[in-house]
Amino acid sequence: MCQLLGMNCNVPTDIVFSFTGFAHRGGRTDEHKDGWGIAFFEGAGVRLFVDHESAVASPVAELIKRYPIKSKNVIAHIRKATQGQVALENCHPFVRELWGSYWVFAHNGDLKQFAPLLDGAFRPVGSTDSERAFCYLLQQLRRRFGDTPPALDALTAEIRELTREIAAHGVFNMMLSNGSALFAHCSTRLHHIVRQYPFTQAKLSDEDLSVDFSEVTTPNDCVAVIVTEPLTTNESWQPFAPGELKVFVEGAAVSS
Amino acid sequence: MCQLLGMNCNVPTDIVFSFTGFAHRGGRTDEHKDGWGIAFFEGAGVRLFVDHESAVASPVAELIKRYPIKSKNVIAHIRKATQGQVALENCHPFVRELWGSYWVFAHNGDLKQFAPLLDGAFRPVGSTDSERAFCYLLQQLRRRFGDTPPALDALTAEIRELTREIAAHGVFNMMLSNGSALFAHCSTRLHHIVRQYPFTQAKLSDEDLSVDFSEVTTPNDCVAVIVTEPLTTNESWQPFAPGELKVFVEGAAVSS
Repeated sequence: MCQLLGMNCNVPTDIVFSFTGFAHRGGRTDEHKDGWGIAFFEGAGVRLFVDHESAVASPVAELIKRYPIKSKNVIAHIRKATQGQVALENCHPFVRELWGSYWVFAHNGDLKQFAPLLDGAFRPVGSTDSERAFCYLLQQLRRRFGDTPPALDALTAEIRELTREIAAHGVFNMMLSNGSALFAHCSTRLHHIVRQYPFTQAKLSDEDLSVDFSEVTTPNDCVAVIVTEPLTTNESWQPFAPGELKVFVEGAAVSS
Repeated sequence: MCQLLGMNCNVPTDIVFSFTGFAHRGGRTDEHKDGWGIAFFEGAGVRLFVDHESAVASPVAELIKRYPIKSKNVIAHIRKATQGQVALENCHPFVRELWGSYWVFAHNGDLKQFAPLLDGAFRPVGSTDSERAFCYLLQQLRRRFGDTPPALDALTAEIRELTREIAAHGVFNMMLSNGSALFAHCSTRLHHIVRQYPFTQAKLSDEDLSVDFSEVTTPNDCVAVIVTEPLTTNESWQPFAPGELKVFVEGAAVSS
């Protein structure tokens, strides 16, 4: 199984602290060493870094730990291959364009007998069940709403329907973002936290590192972090319920 | 105007030497400081690095100069903004998926009154004429050939037709690759060279740096390098004719 990390904020925020702990699970404190990837939205653009080296050994991961790219939406993934060989085209996150926006997707889990009919609008490049699910999701969104992106409520309702359908095939913990909202679906394991005023100190569980968020934030900042396993030992991470889809906008969970 | 750099090889080759000289044009030996980008195919996967800092100042460019990513197809771009603001989503190269392959595109030039009808299958995220041209190219390829990628000859003929149509709107020096072939179209300025046995020493024109390719190659290697302005002072770069489209496969120019 893989691990997922997502961040959704109301101001561009760097993910150096959280990524540092997360990257250690890629080959050091955990066995997820078959590649990793991270995608940052920056305005409408996306920076995508993927690597099939373990996150611990990768010089690109080293760069990200040092280079504070600020983003309002980030999705990261470390991979333990279950389906698809260890190759760059099988590294998450995956990126496609729909409605003139980039969409970023990462998945943790394993889908069985999942061979949806793809009409060719979005076709997998690699051989993972995950990329297949992503292509199917976008295809169905486009079929459902045509050329006009819907309002968030309608979009969320459709994504909820689609994740339920896909999750019937196996474990489907996933994160999906179009750069404004971050959708997170839990089959088995996912946690989240919202960091906001008053900010406190947080201590990484995977490395001897702390940060005092009150020193690097303003009182208006809201930062939602979503992750497979809690990243810190002294914050109160909320587990998702199995089957739950949460939507984060501007650093807060929104109900719909 | 921007500058383009492409490489097409028969064995995965690193582009450190050529990129080092090229990156110096991004803010040091030339004025192309409104961002840069580089895309490497690695198998079916693509690594894309884009930045709106100048290539000279960018820590990501620094990483690429030190980290020898090996690839059979590379497209790089340094940008002097003519249309579209300086933003990540306007940095070349652009990437989309068609027929289950990633396609990478970069453009140097300026298209006037270019507003083709886009049916929604490929839609620009940013505001450049370049991304618009890329979306139009892929849309027309998919319309022409449906869901089945054609043979190289038919593909080349269609791309030749489309580049001619787009180039009627202005300067359209461009590079396009699907990971196996690299298509290069020249409106005004483009040069190429094929490095092959017997390899010799090459000296960068933008920096005091030489490499003896005979020490880092095997006799079977073929490496085609395509660039706006020649990168070295002691090799014989061939200029493209205006309006010419060249196709490179396995490190050689193929006629079709």
